[in-house]
Amino acid sequence: MYLKGEIRLLLEIYRSFGVNLDLAVEAREIVRGETGQEIPGVKVDRESYEHASVTIVEIVDKSAEAVMGKPVGTYITVEAPVLRENNPAAHQQVGEVLARNLSRFVNLSEYSNILLVGLGNWRATPDALGPKVIENSLVTRHLFNYAPQELKGGMRSVSALAPGVLGITGIETAEIIKGVVEKVRPELIMVIDSLAARSVTRICTTIQIADTGISPGSGIGNRRAGINRETMGVPVVAIGVPTVVHAAVIAQDSINGFLEEMKKNNQAFQGLNPGFAQHIIGKVLEPFGGGNLTVTPKEIDSLIHAMSKVIAGGISLALHPGLTADDYAYYLH
Amino acid sequence: MYLKGEIRLLLEIYRSFGVNLDLAVEAREIVRGETGQEIPGVKVDRESYEHASVTIVEIVDKSAEAVMGKPVGTYITVEAPVLRENNPAAHQQVGEVLARNLSRFVNLSEYSNILLVGLGNWRATPDALGPKVIENSLVTRHLFNYAPQELKGGMRSVSALAPGVLGITGIETAEIIKGVVEKVRPELIMVIDSLAARSVTRICTTIQIADTGISPGSGIGNRRAGINRETMGVPVVAIGVPTVVHAAVIAQDSINGFLEEMKKNNQAFQGLNPGFAQHIIGKVLEPFGGGNLTVTPKEIDSLIHAMSKVIAGGISLALHPGLTADDYAYYLH
Amino acid sequence: MYLKGEIRLLLEIYRSFGVNLDLAVEAREIVRGETGQEIPGVKVDRESYEHASVTIVEIVDKSAEAVMGKPVGTYITVEAPVLRENNPAAHQQVGEVLARNLSRFVNLSEYSNILLVGLGNWRATPDALGPKVIENSLVTRHLFNYAPQELKGGMRSVSALAPGVLGITGIETAEIIKGVVEKVRPELIMVIDSLAARSVTRICTTIQIADTGISPGSGIGNRRAGINRETMGVPVVAIGVPTVVHAAVIAQDSINGFLEEMKKNNQAFQGLNPGFAQHIIGKVLEPFGGGNLTVTPKEIDSLIHAMSKVIAGGISLALHPGLTADDYAYYLH
Amino acid sequence: MYLKGEIRLLLEIYRSFGVNLDLAVEAREIVRGETGQEIPGVKVDRESYEHASVTIVEIVDKSAEAVMGKPVGTYITVEAPVLRENNPAAHQQVGEVLARNLSRFVNLSEYSNILLVGLGNWRATPDALGPKVIENSLVTRHLFNYAPQELKGGMRSVSALAPGVLGITGIETAEIIKGVVEKVRPELIMVIDSLAARSVTRICTTIQIADTGISPGSGIGNRRAGINRETMGVPVVAIGVPTVVHAAVIAQDSINGFLEEMKKNNQAFQGLNPGFAQHIIGKVLEPFGGGNLTVTPKEIDSLIHAMSKVIAGGISLALHPGLTADDYAYYLH
Repeated sequence: MYLKGEIRLLLEIYRSFGVNLDLAVEAREIVRGETGQEIPGVKVDRESYEHASVTIVEIVDKSAEAVMGKPVGTYITVEAPVLRENNPAAHQQVGEVLARNLSRFVNLSEYSNILLVGLGNWRATPDALGPKVIENSLVTRHLFNYAPQELKGGMRSVSALAPGVLGITGIETAEIIKGVVEKVRPELIMVIDSLAARSVTRICTTIQIADTGISPGSGIGNRRAGINRETMGVPVVAIGVPTVVHAAVIAQDSINGFLEEMKKNNQAFQGLNPGFAQHIIGKVLEPFGGGNLTVTPKEIDSLIHAMSKVIAGGISLALHPGLTADDYAYYLH
Repeated sequence: MYLKGEIRLLLEIYRSFGVNLDLAVEAREIVRGETGQEIPGVKVDRESYEHASVTIVEIVDKSAEAVMGKPVGTYITVEAPVLRENNPAAHQQVGEVLARNLSRFVNLSEYSNILLVGLGNWRATPDALGPKVIENSLVTRHLFNYAPQELKGGMRSVSALAPGVLGITGIETAEIIKGVVEKVRPELIMVIDSLAARSVTRICTTIQIADTGISPGSGIGNRRAGINRETMGVPVVAIGVPTVVHAAVIAQDSINGFLEEMKKNNQAFQGLNPGFAQHIIGKVLEPFGGGNLTVTPKEIDSLIHAMSKVIAGGISLALHPGLTADDYAYYLH
Repeated sequence: MYLKGEIRLLLEIYRSFGVNLDLAVEAREIVRGETGQEIPGVKVDRESYEHASVTIVEIVDKSAEAVMGKPVGTYITVEAPVLRENNPAAHQQVGEVLARNLSRFVNLSEYSNILLVGLGNWRATPDALGPKVIENSLVTRHLFNYAPQELKGGMRSVSALAPGVLGITGIETAEIIKGVVEKVRPELIMVIDSLAARSVTRICTTIQIADTGISPGSGIGNRRAGINRETMGVPVVAIGVPTVVHAAVIAQDSINGFLEEMKKNNQAFQGLNPGFAQHIIGKVLEPFGGGNLTVTPKEIDSLIHAMSKVIAGGISLALHPGLTADDYAYYLH
Repeated sequence: MYLKGEIRLLLEIYRSFGVNLDLAVEAREIVRGETGQEIPGVKVDRESYEHASVTIVEIVDKSAEAVMGKPVGTYITVEAPVLRENNPAAHQQVGEVLARNLSRFVNLSEYSNILLVGLGNWRATPDALGPKVIENSLVTRHLFNYAPQELKGGMRSVSALAPGVLGITGIETAEIIKGVVEKVRPELIMVIDSLAARSVTRICTTIQIADTGISPGSGIGNRRAGINRETMGVPVVAIGVPTVVHAAVIAQDSINGFLEEMKKNNQAFQGLNPGFAQHIIGKVLEPFGGGNLTVTPKEIDSLIHAMSKVIAGGISLALHPGLTADDYAYYLH
């Protein structure tokens, strides 16, 4: 789809409008471009389910990290367009697929202690996914401290935090989490965040889980500092869901579609400034600043509600081995 | 900006993606195109204030109605970029400018009875403006029926309705309003609605008031039936605020920007299908349907909150002649 | 429990603090007092389910109407303490019991057209049940007007309205409903409302359905005008759920408990003013006005959320004969 | 009002239903009882304003601490019944009175760094005050780190945290705060919390500020661990507002009112079990557990909204010496 020079230009445009390639599957697609060949240092595997397909992208070495713009690690993408429909049985299946894939990253004893962190601003709909997952999660740590032994069968100690956003707290999210981690001392952190995608089809239909945590600048809130094993001292699994597409991507795609149309007609431009696309997009989006304008479907409120149930259900199923199917169904709906 | 054939094409593209030109000032701008001459049958007047500028567009006859795609009537646009800032004194001035312009349409005795109608879905942020204005308005009709005479000095009888949206009620909004109008028998109806604009600069900075009521197909919820003097039997003043830009407009603007860039370089296409732009935009936006995807700034929740205060304040000031400045300030904040 | 003179006194106290006996089972209990004999003109029947018990109180004649303070008609009470627990399977059973009992009042052809009305204020938690049921209901009327025939199998035409409250609209709720009824022309109206109970055990565990509609003065919002067959011209089924206990009831129960304690000790008062209890309660509750103070459990938000799902599910199952178990489960959760 | 033995009984009843005497002025009133004499080790001072009266209770020594059941320190109570009315000018005055009294506890350089903490659950109306104050506060710490020097004139570095509640996080609130304090290193902490009062007149009309921080067991959420200078290592100012009365207090007051009525009639009981009141209240409130049932006025949502503005305004005025009157008015409304 893209030639070498074009990729560089595309990424430059994105950068200039604050657009981050949050999804590894999208980064890979762009980098591979028209060559159709796998990127050196990147391994890909796939699984299929009735209502979901899973793509596992492994970034194996530093050279692949540089090309992909994402740290070495494993990125699992669950794609399930059915999440946009009112189909509770199918949502349940997606939750189970999510749980199974989360389990690849969860290597814990029954006494392990896990901290869930929901990033984002619960007052701004597309950024509210993280706090909503926290609200719907099965939190048990306080019961472990106070309740009798028999209540704990099959449950792990889980705590949860919705740290808020920099604009409201005045504190870097990573600082708040680090402070709490030093008190709670979890063996594992799971961070839930809203992402931006390059395609509107992905909004609330795609879930990415990664063992690399959160990179600086990623997420629709552009988290400033990393939340990962390096900064937190324990493994961090990131669960991200695209809830918006940056308006700059829509603009860029439209211009790109035009260029393709021209190529089909064997026409070409001469004398165009290399930065012309950036210039045009800037003029279209300038008033609010490009990175600040996002595209969402009208039904975004209910899509996020449904997605928060699927993720809270999947996490609970992955973390509490003794959870019954009935309890689980409860968390999904 | 546009040549004749281009306007036709542009409007066709908009129509195919369910985009309506809700603002008369924008429709006029497009129709006038590059000619710079006023449209026959359209009169324009302007006023300036410290924090707001006002444009009055009158569509005088049926020929202008056909060209503009909007019914004969008066459309007043208040433009106030300051509404995006935390400046309470400036917001108060905009509310007063709104009140003064609403008064042009309010020709009532002190015993008149006015019905406010807030269109839209309070669960979907950019469509929640109407219901929020209703919540913040100074409603008095029940006091007129129950309270002693001395409480009513300087107040008119005002009632309010938030009828909900078709998807939740199963009933055309116009049917609900008509049913209530036949009970309440107001002398005037004011309808508040969320609109779509062609420019992101207008989001929550522009207020349009019109004596034509609501046309079918307008508003971001695409109200299906008209709410106007014809259907309601009494004058209907519409107060509309752009809260979104359709994604299709962003896409179209980007392509258009490209074409302009080419013209500057004295280049032209050959052999392009006339529907190429529509085709490209369709491909970019297709997954959710073009009309369903909207662009909003991230801070849309707080912008709508502030705007609902300004409008509720302006309406109260226009309808209740005895309202004091202090009461008014309360309604603005 | 109560002697004749005491009942009269109790009802007087309630009336003076704006407390209405919304539940027929509670009115019957009070009126029967200590006699243990059934009230003439009142018939009672019972049914039991695993997770719910059902009491059917029929007020047969005008003399019973006078004694009970509730109009002639049938009052079905579903009691299900399990609604306070996280038990989705049990909630589903309660929804089915509700559907079965609603069906006693639904005598409709497959082409019938039903209007749901959710009373109350969605901004005030304990009064938000009605609007929340409307949001969760399966509304189809607009599909009947626009969709192809094959989509309608097994569905009836259902529309829905949340008319708001007098303080916000300035319009009597009954007027709004009547206006809409004259447009929609339903064969049946179902009205959902929040009630006050005499016992905190009933909060969000009891559902009353009645073929008498809504009486003036009932509900926690003290609806001013009746919504019933007389005012609406078609049958009105009322679905009511206690969400609060008036503080005056707590005060009265405490005093009453004291009197009982005394009796057990064979002591009695002399010289007490007959209005002493009213006087005491008034002093305790006076600052906000007795009728305005309500008692709720801390978890009222989530109790109302769960109850709105059960009721929306039960209504949908009762009205749409073709609804599948899967669809139904979706509406319950 | 109370005799010695009665006070002991009253406090026992409260304790058994989880009722804490959060307000020092109420504790003092009860302890003083009918004697009318000041409690040894307690000093009281008063100030009056047009719309507010201020009572300063100092608990000077350990013996007073034991009698009052509250730690040695200064408790300032601002009483302003006008907060229940729509009177913006009066609310502004109360905010200024609050600011002046907060300043007694704020002994900081212009470079000091302050952390605001809003306790409570934003999903449960009467417990949402803390998080709502955080949302409305003027937070600047991130600007100090990123913005140019000239923006900071007259501002102090303020950050803010809404840590959530144990039931949702599984983590003691004090642990979360301590973790963040170790990162942010503030010179002063201000904690905002919802309290329970003994009188419904106090709901959202009284503000208590204290230099003792939060004691274990206080607040309507019954915070389990203390948040004070001892646990946090820096001074902690607590700002508390009664938003509920425990139902047990209503019950107890009713019984007490009865006893008084009897005394007036020169009657007395014999043979009453000393625990009779506790027994009666238990029977009335038992189903939900006494401490869990709270009394609130119907308009609690809007009362809390107004109060959160007054407190956020007062805090901002106390902490930012350069705040102008206009900025301040904005925060109040």
